[in-house]
Amino acid sequence: MLSRLLDAIAAPAEGAATAAQRHLDTLTKPPGSLGRLEELAVRLAALRGTPPTVESPVVFVFAADHGVVAERVSAYPQTVTAQMVENFVAGGAAINVLARQAGARVVVADFGVAREIVAQALVSRRIGAGTANMAVGPAMTRVQAIAAVEAGATLAMEQSGADLFATGEMGIGNTTAASAITAVITGTDPEAVTGRGTGVDDATWSRKVAVVRRALAVNTPDPHDPIGVLAAVGGFEIAGLVGVILAGAAQRVPVAIDGFIATSAALIAAALAPAARFALFAAHRSAEPGHAAALAHLALVPYLDLGMRLGEGTGAALFIHLARAAACVYAEMATFKSAGVDGPAEVSPP
Amino acid sequence: MLSRLLDAIAAPAEGAATAAQRHLDTLTKPPGSLGRLEELAVRLAALRGTPPTVESPVVFVFAADHGVVAERVSAYPQTVTAQMVENFVAGGAAINVLARQAGARVVVADFGVAREIVAQALVSRRIGAGTANMAVGPAMTRVQAIAAVEAGATLAMEQSGADLFATGEMGIGNTTAASAITAVITGTDPEAVTGRGTGVDDATWSRKVAVVRRALAVNTPDPHDPIGVLAAVGGFEIAGLVGVILAGAAQRVPVAIDGFIATSAALIAAALAPAARFALFAAHRSAEPGHAAALAHLALVPYLDLGMRLGEGTGAALFIHLARAAACVYAEMATFKSAGVDGPAEVSPP
Repeated sequence: MLSRLLDAIAAPAEGAATAAQRHLDTLTKPPGSLGRLEELAVRLAALRGTPPTVESPVVFVFAADHGVVAERVSAYPQTVTAQMVENFVAGGAAINVLARQAGARVVVADFGVAREIVAQALVSRRIGAGTANMAVGPAMTRVQAIAAVEAGATLAMEQSGADLFATGEMGIGNTTAASAITAVITGTDPEAVTGRGTGVDDATWSRKVAVVRRALAVNTPDPHDPIGVLAAVGGFEIAGLVGVILAGAAQRVPVAIDGFIATSAALIAAALAPAARFALFAAHRSAEPGHAAALAHLALVPYLDLGMRLGEGTGAALFIHLARAAACVYAEMATFKSAGVDGPAEVSPP
Repeated sequence: MLSRLLDAIAAPAEGAATAAQRHLDTLTKPPGSLGRLEELAVRLAALRGTPPTVESPVVFVFAADHGVVAERVSAYPQTVTAQMVENFVAGGAAINVLARQAGARVVVADFGVAREIVAQALVSRRIGAGTANMAVGPAMTRVQAIAAVEAGATLAMEQSGADLFATGEMGIGNTTAASAITAVITGTDPEAVTGRGTGVDDATWSRKVAVVRRALAVNTPDPHDPIGVLAAVGGFEIAGLVGVILAGAAQRVPVAIDGFIATSAALIAAALAPAARFALFAAHRSAEPGHAAALAHLALVPYLDLGMRLGEGTGAALFIHLARAAACVYAEMATFKSAGVDGPAEVSPP
């Protein structure tokens, strides 16, 4: 299934972006005066091959635990992953609030939380009860990595009518995994891509950097083998998001990439299928230092920069408003001609 | 009336911001992890003195013409001001689209468009048929300036139930006025605060800078006399927005400041009543070069940076989503206690 998915991912039709920009230039505003909102509209229109809509966005919040927490890399205990999943299901987390505001459906899925939770509003796609500790061996097997990617992709493809996917995650320890993935794929030193996560102190940060180094030394992941990287130093929820991204790219549904962890999934997805990049929209710039390296590698410039570092898809949820604004501008504004507004005057030299 | 308005403007209660931040820190997220969304929530809560809401935002789009267009400072003919007012009334402009999306009411008011338009959806607060040419004398009289400020304030105070004001404008030539105001109030050289407006060429830009210099030389506005500055080099719609800002500050309604022109109105308002600043929210960073100087003078940091330079209140309309997100987070998220989520673990040194 994965290879069929990868085969379906292609660049937008040639000329689609130019045609979309031409349409925007007929609307009652000086050309280019809506700045990046226009670029966003053009990218959405080119990807969709039709006037874009953002009427049925879906936020995927995938949760899993990480064996690497045994190295004490997080400010919070592992119990918080399951507790936050319960919070998502109850509707009390930041992502619930922001998704509600954005008119987005939230799909919460357990990809391998240590403590299994049963709830009607929770989708179970458990690959295991958390990954193994990447500091002593691979986080998961290749078979598990592919299963998680395919499960994420399938879940995304089941959301019929969705016109935007947003990527969210929860997993105590997962910034450590994202740092390791980013270090490998972008070829950056672990120290430069390892941050404070939920807010660790200096001693924990130093240990976290050392743990990422150790994980790379122990597993020697090959950047040209993205599934291998994912298996070695990834996470079940990250693998699930790789699936969402690939499904979005294959179906030409825009994918709003949240912060550092979601972007590490995008690094894997784009390594598997470079044309997936056309479906990727970097929602915001995370306060996590590794995010910049990951975004630069993907040649994506984020739309929001609010110093956020919560994850869960919160930045992607805020981005939904911008994407919808771009789509509305594209579809609803009057043209110079229809509104009877004059174009630029001939301004002669003095 | 103006002096009563100024007397009513005061800083938020001491301790209000601290109390609001304390509330945010009880919610299920690492402290500070929502970045500027938290700062925004704190400012809104402190201003309102109560959990903030953004349920009834109103966008004020004030239009007027500018005598300075006689100096050929714009890429568009003056006829466009009236045509765009007709476009606003018909609902086809960018601000209509973006306000609709944000669930905001649009109040379009004619503060002095050269060609008078009669339409049911248009509020008439005409101070004149456009200002005089500031390059040869004052744009308006002090009496006109005060009348426009008071008309704007009254219009704002009539919007009962509004919990956010957004400032928008239309007026061919008004970036020239905004540049002149910004140069005077911030003490910056006209060249540094004069931009391309709707997109003028090099020759027109040079002429525009020279016109601003001439306006300052001819009128010698005194930065310590804000109404005098407004009369000398302002515009009727800019004066109207000064009124909206003062009304918002007096009634503790947050005011979303759009781009360069709206910020020039904020410069006048804050010069009249320094505590008005607590009600001001810089929606976005405009592509106009003078905007940075104006924002720095007000010590405001914009929330969005999308390279927009359209005006009409379009940046402020986008900001409404962020303000609403902040308000929703403040009011709707679960606390660690209510959700049964553990706080940070004691991470002991290795």
